[in-house]
Amino acid sequence: MTNEELMGITALNSWKLVVGRFDQGLAALTDEQLQTQVAPGKNRLFYLVGHLTAVHDRLFPLLGIGKRLHPELDETYITNPDKTIADPLAPADLRKAWADVNSKLTAAFEKFTPADWLQKHTAVSDEDFAKDPTRNRLAVVMSRTNHASFHSGQSVLAK
Amino acid sequence: MTNEELMGITALNSWKLVVGRFDQGLAALTDEQLQTQVAPGKNRLFYLVGHLTAVHDRLFPLLGIGKRLHPELDETYITNPDKTIADPLAPADLRKAWADVNSKLTAAFEKFTPADWLQKHTAVSDEDFAKDPTRNRLAVVMSRTNHASFHSGQSVLAK
Repeated sequence: MTNEELMGITALNSWKLVVGRFDQGLAALTDEQLQTQVAPGKNRLFYLVGHLTAVHDRLFPLLGIGKRLHPELDETYITNPDKTIADPLAPADLRKAWADVNSKLTAAFEKFTPADWLQKHTAVSDEDFAKDPTRNRLAVVMSRTNHASFHSGQSVLAK
Repeated sequence: MTNEELMGITALNSWKLVVGRFDQGLAALTDEQLQTQVAPGKNRLFYLVGHLTAVHDRLFPLLGIGKRLHPELDETYITNPDKTIADPLAPADLRKAWADVNSKLTAAFEKFTPADWLQKHTAVSDEDFAKDPTRNRLAVVMSRTNHASFHSGQSVLAK
């Protein structure tokens, strides 16, 4: 295996590990527990699952790897704070949306060559990317992995 | 720049971004605010700063890049839960320890070649590393970056 292939796999493993841990935490919670706030007056676990699902779903167009599966989640879980808009999906459907989005993303990342990882994401112009080639897909996936870790840290406080 | 160099820099940027954001949050807090718990009955911000400093300090021997700066933090902030042992450092000294550890680590990472990133860490045997070359320094740094994000997510709840 080449160095660049090994680096891509190492980054992919990091994504899988973080998403997998959130999966485990989610599987251990009842639908009722998903209504718990992570701290008094803060987001419900349900909101965080919706938020992470919507943010990850946005990776399809951002990375140029396909169409979104759940654009209906943005208004509730990205644009607005918790409890502003009624949850658009039932708990079982949100759990399925979370799983579907991540499994489809992971399958796409598993096929990435090093050159694929280093392609520009679609929110940066050709000109800006020429100046700064670190604005690539790898940077975006690392950023989303850290974002998922950020909210995972909050989620465990609800226990 | 080669693909492997670009991947190393992208990972380094992710580390810098997460540590830099935590730095900013920390700079905005008074010493008194550092005594706040992130949620009722949970860790104090002060404990989280001590914990992240100790965990990052352990990277020097784990990555084989030098001696630890603050081994005295482990018992209070890794081995034991919050409020078990009195804080060994005054707030100003803990802030300095956090800054020193991270700036020295970042300086070391900035000198890493792709081959340096892919060297084995010191907690894996030669035999196990031969079987699984993803147990490398890059994986460790990505893991610690996600760990810092995990506790950053908790820290912002104290506001």
